[in-house]
Amino acid sequence: MTFTAPLREELRGVEPYGAPQIDVPVQLNVNENPYGPSEAVVADVAAAVADATRTLNRYPDREFTALREDLAAYLGHGVTPAQVWAANGSNEVMLQILQAFGGPGRTAVSFAPTYSMYPEYARDAMTDWVVGHREEDFSLDVAHAVEVIAKHRPSVVLLPSPNNPTGTALPPATVTAVCAAAAEVDGIVVIDEAYGEFRRAGTPSALEVLAETPNLVVSRTMSKAFALAGARLGYLAASTEITDALRVVRLPYHLSAVTQAVARVALRHADELLARVDDLRAERDRTVSWLRGQGLTVAESDANYVLFGRFADRHAVWQGLLDQGVLIRETGPDGWLRVSVGTPAEMTAFHTALTATLGRGLG
Amino acid sequence: MTFTAPLREELRGVEPYGAPQIDVPVQLNVNENPYGPSEAVVADVAAAVADATRTLNRYPDREFTALREDLAAYLGHGVTPAQVWAANGSNEVMLQILQAFGGPGRTAVSFAPTYSMYPEYARDAMTDWVVGHREEDFSLDVAHAVEVIAKHRPSVVLLPSPNNPTGTALPPATVTAVCAAAAEVDGIVVIDEAYGEFRRAGTPSALEVLAETPNLVVSRTMSKAFALAGARLGYLAASTEITDALRVVRLPYHLSAVTQAVARVALRHADELLARVDDLRAERDRTVSWLRGQGLTVAESDANYVLFGRFADRHAVWQGLLDQGVLIRETGPDGWLRVSVGTPAEMTAFHTALTATLGRGLG
Repeated sequence: MTFTAPLREELRGVEPYGAPQIDVPVQLNVNENPYGPSEAVVADVAAAVADATRTLNRYPDREFTALREDLAAYLGHGVTPAQVWAANGSNEVMLQILQAFGGPGRTAVSFAPTYSMYPEYARDAMTDWVVGHREEDFSLDVAHAVEVIAKHRPSVVLLPSPNNPTGTALPPATVTAVCAAAAEVDGIVVIDEAYGEFRRAGTPSALEVLAETPNLVVSRTMSKAFALAGARLGYLAASTEITDALRVVRLPYHLSAVTQAVARVALRHADELLARVDDLRAERDRTVSWLRGQGLTVAESDANYVLFGRFADRHAVWQGLLDQGVLIRETGPDGWLRVSVGTPAEMTAFHTALTATLGRGLG
Repeated sequence: MTFTAPLREELRGVEPYGAPQIDVPVQLNVNENPYGPSEAVVADVAAAVADATRTLNRYPDREFTALREDLAAYLGHGVTPAQVWAANGSNEVMLQILQAFGGPGRTAVSFAPTYSMYPEYARDAMTDWVVGHREEDFSLDVAHAVEVIAKHRPSVVLLPSPNNPTGTALPPATVTAVCAAAAEVDGIVVIDEAYGEFRRAGTPSALEVLAETPNLVVSRTMSKAFALAGARLGYLAASTEITDALRVVRLPYHLSAVTQAVARVALRHADELLARVDDLRAERDRTVSWLRGQGLTVAESDANYVLFGRFADRHAVWQGLLDQGVLIRETGPDGWLRVSVGTPAEMTAFHTALTATLGRGLG
């Protein structure tokens, strides 16, 4: 039998998404937290998972009640457990949002440069995808945002804050204005705070306006601040009308008993894990200063990465760093590169490699 | 601001899927394996997870290479690691299949009675859903199947074998004929062997015809035979054309490092875990005999559950059992009930409760 599988037309020739996984000494390409957990955390995880394993023949708590309580307590701002939702990574959270509120005949909107995975989520949920633009300094012009929303009438607006890959946080007034514009067309607004814990002092979270904004969703992840990328736990806070809708499209038992146990241990160790966030914020600010000291253009960053440029040939710079064992990311608008904030030693390696690369006239 | 979230029309008023989670002494409602892991397995899981936790700040292996190798070795039949795919439960595997090969403008087909989740997967992947029928004895009539396939031209056919909730396995000749009919309309066929390990001696797996059937997908799960429902690991074997397509629609890093580690430990302990499957098959056969001895009609079962009836008021029988602390499932065609096969003690409790219920003239 000869046979060609009936792959959907829009998927033909598409490569699976993902940054190159290259094994080099200094990995500063996917915004991972460089600090692994302490042995105290490791021991607590092992004990909690051993306990969960004894009943692993049973399905997990479909409503992950205890985890929702812990996440609500962590978020504060009056968020209740019923207002919390979680899934296997922010990407599953986003897919579920689009399955419930997007889909055929509907449109999702973002503003470029924006997170490169969003159009894939929209495609997987068969949702039309429209992109407005950000300004030269990567801020979002409210008048433009309102105009795009009024014209395309999206059911979902996706806005990272801090923005990926630029690091730019949205002021509360912008969040409120975008939510008001979206409400006019019956749309919800997802403020994606995957990197929210890294924001600078004085930068507010969108959680502060959640209570009075019924069409607002604030999403977070444990991958970054909690240094738990390998555990896959994304979550959000929203009105119960929205979280109840996500319960309809979630696959039953989507969060394993083990995932729930690991996430709860990490939340119990929040103080220890978040202390590293302060180290990384300081290192981020040093990185911005150092890059500016080299005469480069650097975007303001509230995240654990820094976008810098601009290079006539950014690929040559990226390759020059890789040749010296430093892997960063070729992403964002042409001419820019993104470096994740690592340990002081890793950032020194980055400085050395970049100085050598630019010294050779590359870029 | 007053606001109504833009839930998709087809989701309005829909309750989240899931069997009632009622805490009673004897739970025989969701086909869980009653045997928890040994302390040796618990210790190995804890050690493997501790090891994985030390690098949990990094993203997991997106291609889950080691796990695919282990799953391929377990499946045998010449299946290569590249022919294996896995996700967070069979339900995510099925959703990915429909996202790649179903979707708007396409149709998925099954034959009732069939697994009650399938139409939800189709809905979540915005795929049209058509159901043919099985015969009075729950076998599949090939002529009918071919006719439905020719008429509706599905891109995906979903067929559980053993069937859920009836327990009926498909003969290889039926699998081959359905695959040939589907190939005529460029469709793939998923033989869902979630309960495949429980099949009776002499009942073949669809894996036996996989090599010569390019449009065949054979799916499995670690929830049942491996007693790992809480760990969420579903998988499949198919041509690499099909597994490569699933890599395009999967969310990056969909399988956590912890999930990969737990599944690999369970596969290393396959002999111990599968020894319990033999116990359950014997208990299943005893359950069938006992029910027939009570004068009831019982479907032939190759699974770890038994469908029996027929009752004028099956809900009364279900409630009568529940009142005595035995939870079974009200599912399948009207008049039938499904009981999962538990431990000998649990089945004795079921016998006692059912005898008392029927003795009171219920049903």
